[in-house]
Amino acid sequence: MERKRIGKQTLCLTNPPSVVGSAAAVGKKEGEGPLGSAFDLICEDTYCGEKSFEKAESALQRLALAHALNKARLSPAQVRYLFAGDLLNQCVASSFAMRDSGVPFLGLYGACSTMAEGLGLAALMIDGGYADCTCAVASSHFCAAERQFRQPLEYGGQRTQTAQWTATAAGAAVLAAEGSGPYVTHVTFGRIRDGGIRDVSNMGAAMAQAAYDTLCRHFEDLGAAPSDYDLIVTGDLGRVGRSIVLDLFRRDGLDLSPVYDDCGVLLYDQERQDVHAGGSGCGCSAAVLCAWILNGVSAGRWKRVLFCGTGALMSPTSAGQGESIPGICHAVAIYGGR
Amino acid sequence: MERKRIGKQTLCLTNPPSVVGSAAAVGKKEGEGPLGSAFDLICEDTYCGEKSFEKAESALQRLALAHALNKARLSPAQVRYLFAGDLLNQCVASSFAMRDSGVPFLGLYGACSTMAEGLGLAALMIDGGYADCTCAVASSHFCAAERQFRQPLEYGGQRTQTAQWTATAAGAAVLAAEGSGPYVTHVTFGRIRDGGIRDVSNMGAAMAQAAYDTLCRHFEDLGAAPSDYDLIVTGDLGRVGRSIVLDLFRRDGLDLSPVYDDCGVLLYDQERQDVHAGGSGCGCSAAVLCAWILNGVSAGRWKRVLFCGTGALMSPTSAGQGESIPGICHAVAIYGGR
Repeated sequence: MERKRIGKQTLCLTNPPSVVGSAAAVGKKEGEGPLGSAFDLICEDTYCGEKSFEKAESALQRLALAHALNKARLSPAQVRYLFAGDLLNQCVASSFAMRDSGVPFLGLYGACSTMAEGLGLAALMIDGGYADCTCAVASSHFCAAERQFRQPLEYGGQRTQTAQWTATAAGAAVLAAEGSGPYVTHVTFGRIRDGGIRDVSNMGAAMAQAAYDTLCRHFEDLGAAPSDYDLIVTGDLGRVGRSIVLDLFRRDGLDLSPVYDDCGVLLYDQERQDVHAGGSGCGCSAAVLCAWILNGVSAGRWKRVLFCGTGALMSPTSAGQGESIPGICHAVAIYGGR
Repeated sequence: MERKRIGKQTLCLTNPPSVVGSAAAVGKKEGEGPLGSAFDLICEDTYCGEKSFEKAESALQRLALAHALNKARLSPAQVRYLFAGDLLNQCVASSFAMRDSGVPFLGLYGACSTMAEGLGLAALMIDGGYADCTCAVASSHFCAAERQFRQPLEYGGQRTQTAQWTATAAGAAVLAAEGSGPYVTHVTFGRIRDGGIRDVSNMGAAMAQAAYDTLCRHFEDLGAAPSDYDLIVTGDLGRVGRSIVLDLFRRDGLDLSPVYDDCGVLLYDQERQDVHAGGSGCGCSAAVLCAWILNGVSAGRWKRVLFCGTGALMSPTSAGQGESIPGICHAVAIYGGR
């Protein structure tokens, strides 16, 4: 059977799966931000009761998934596939989080685009008839990321104004063949774009080109316009990348601003919280999606949302070898239904 | 539409995609091994003409994919999705290899199970009607892995007898909706198993439990026996893990030995090449599959093959924090057809 493949990159799901449960577990700083009240669980302790930051990140994933499954009134045994990923070397936050779940596990690496990649694949597994129930999970942890990617926290390194703050957060979404929405209706998996940005403290600029590319493909494939969505949200370009995306569309004569926002911009308060260009990390867009966005769709605040996960596919090694930063963006359309 | 989901974990593909091209690019040592003549390209230069080991690994991926597409008489523009992964931190071998491909990119992390995970997902995307043509690629590079996971090469560290040798290799498979086989007929995505092994120089033992688990599920789901396959091949358990798998099945009264082998055992000559327990790395099973196994199926040497990618989902950080090594295994059934 031929599914609906539209244009070059976009898939139209003929049996759109429903998000039957979603949850976010975040750190103290994220809980104090503008979206704090949307999150299911705020861990005041940076270690989440564990012995290391890495184990704390795994704990956040487990908490988010447990809450999401609880809302869906499902047990892990009812989940057929679990897609998960994170920023840690060898994605250990995910593998250790899901080690005891007993659910067939598919590890992903898409940097901060991981939640969108996982949500898209999890949706296709249901739409394609391969599963009744799937999950997508992603996480990041500020302290684990800092010491892996940058400096020991104790060093107290200065950050440039274009730098983003890695969110301590995890989000989990449970999808099922039957449900009352929100529904995943379209998926546009993106290609890698590299605009030649070499500054690892300016990931937003590096990923903006990929976001623009995938959004253009999505609109072109569907013959759609930005105004067909109530909310187009990238995650996580931060303030710098967000303004570049707006500029790129402005050049094409399109004003994205009435419907456009970015998870990295939304997560923290620019005045009160010292995060410079905004939030980042797989957990940022995952938590904002699985709490604020999906709750908003369920509550009727938005009917059509385009969730665009953006990732910077570099490593400290590639940056150290003078390489530029390849970016990617996967877009998933979510429909409130009813 | 309901696809064929069999038992707890196994999927039966109703429109089995065909492997229309596959290729492997390997290093000098791998080329000198028993399977040397099967590989498409042997790079005598460890750097593959690049400036770093990491870039050399990306070059191997690009070479393998280019050769595989060439055999399939397809251009990258005809590929709808590309699944790729490797062992490097943040999977940069894959993202930099595929940066200029222009193909929608889905990054995976499954350690040495990556090729099986990618092959399974790439097959489902076609079987599900989401694509006409997809690719799965995976790689590893001995020198890049050594300095990332272990010691600088110059240190000349001693290796224990249970240790495996990371292969310098990449494999790429091109799948299409139409073709004359080999066909991907079944996929069993595995769950994470952890037998409590903490010795990072004994990954084979750590992964053997996962291989056993997925194989048991596969046989149970399909009501099949090992003898239903002409070749059951794990990748990469090496000699230690291989013998554990044989033992575990022997306890169940099943003799796997007439049809069972392991890519890590096959890749190197135990007498002539100093690799201790055998080969490992995402590129090991990828290259053995994309050259020796798929060529053998095409040539009629085997009719039914079960390719079982096995991964150790740990990192130097998790090991350093005293954690045991979680393993995973994804099984993909390949049928020669005709």
